[in-house]
Amino acid sequence: MSVTEVDGRRRRGNASRQAVLDRAVQLASTEGLGGLSIGQLATDLGASKSGVIALFGNKLDLQLATIQAARSVFIATVIEPALRVQRGLPRLWAVCELWLDYSDARVFEGGCFFRAVSAENGPKPGPVRDALAVIDDEWQAFIERSATMATPELPRLQDSEQLAFEIVAIMDGANIASLLHGSARYYDLARSAIRDRLVALGADPAQLSRPAAPTAAPATG
Amino acid sequence: MSVTEVDGRRRRGNASRQAVLDRAVQLASTEGLGGLSIGQLATDLGASKSGVIALFGNKLDLQLATIQAARSVFIATVIEPALRVQRGLPRLWAVCELWLDYSDARVFEGGCFFRAVSAENGPKPGPVRDALAVIDDEWQAFIERSATMATPELPRLQDSEQLAFEIVAIMDGANIASLLHGSARYYDLARSAIRDRLVALGADPAQLSRPAAPTAAPATG
Repeated sequence: MSVTEVDGRRRRGNASRQAVLDRAVQLASTEGLGGLSIGQLATDLGASKSGVIALFGNKLDLQLATIQAARSVFIATVIEPALRVQRGLPRLWAVCELWLDYSDARVFEGGCFFRAVSAENGPKPGPVRDALAVIDDEWQAFIERSATMATPELPRLQDSEQLAFEIVAIMDGANIASLLHGSARYYDLARSAIRDRLVALGADPAQLSRPAAPTAAPATG
Repeated sequence: MSVTEVDGRRRRGNASRQAVLDRAVQLASTEGLGGLSIGQLATDLGASKSGVIALFGNKLDLQLATIQAARSVFIATVIEPALRVQRGLPRLWAVCELWLDYSDARVFEGGCFFRAVSAENGPKPGPVRDALAVIDDEWQAFIERSATMATPELPRLQDSEQLAFEIVAIMDGANIASLLHGSARYYDLARSAIRDRLVALGADPAQLSRPAAPTAAPATG
């Protein structure tokens, strides 16, 4: 077999793997990682069960790969855009807006993927919970570092870890309540709560406005 | 059949029903309401599957009865003790302490029953989600009323609904993180967050201390 043929196979294998994972992250966000079924995924994708097993091995491997795939989506949707914003208070505020939009837009059908599967797996020690705990630590640490970098603009900030805990809890609260009550108003409550907290720490309220929606080009003529 | 015999049967039926529900609330708190299995419950209780079906009918009825049983436990553990505390700031603070203790003590094996099953059912419209949304509204309203009654002691409080949302979110955040990371330290972060928020609204910090542990009777000598 030529190198080109091997590369072609690998490319097709990666594409198949990604197609399964794209479906798996959505399914797990509503049904939980325990609800991931190799048979269901094969049916949804018009593939054979043995084909999916060949790509992922056992269910635990599929669950762990699904978590990493969701992490990649989260990084592309929330973390990378936040990193393009000026560090300090603008970035801290941007990451909150980006997260609330990510939850509200249902990038994952079941709201935040990590909240959905953390509630499912929190009570169950094992490799799935361990993987989720590592990602939760990364996320809390990202908010904490973003808060620490905003210290010059938050003169009364004394404990970035405490602030990160509060911000994450308030955003998760909006995610949970918006799903349960089928209402987006909780995102406004969360935005107000975070804004008030930052203003109490000394932030300039003018820096915490909702980014203006792009205005349409003025009509000519 | 005599009235006494009917009463005896009803009593035994109620006792069996309660035994199933006592197990069901624990099982659902870790496995979800979707994970409630009539067969599993029968095995756990050494009962027959047909006996459990006779008590509950179908799975949906069992799920709804399990939610109401969990609500009763929650009322006895959190709401009733809070109602015995003086209304105003003492009661508002007491309900927070009671809730954090309820979560930390794992009254339900999977932490707060309602957080566990709300994450599971939030994305799924239907009678289960509706029942959970009603209970969540009751709970948010209880905190909101407790906050409103504390207005004289919280002179800067302007929006009790907003405060209730924040308090509930912060407590839920501690519940989720303590399960995921297997650590009780998040309860301290939550207690600090709520205390700081109330002090910012004008509360007297002396009213927000942890109740002293009962001291042992002095040894006699």
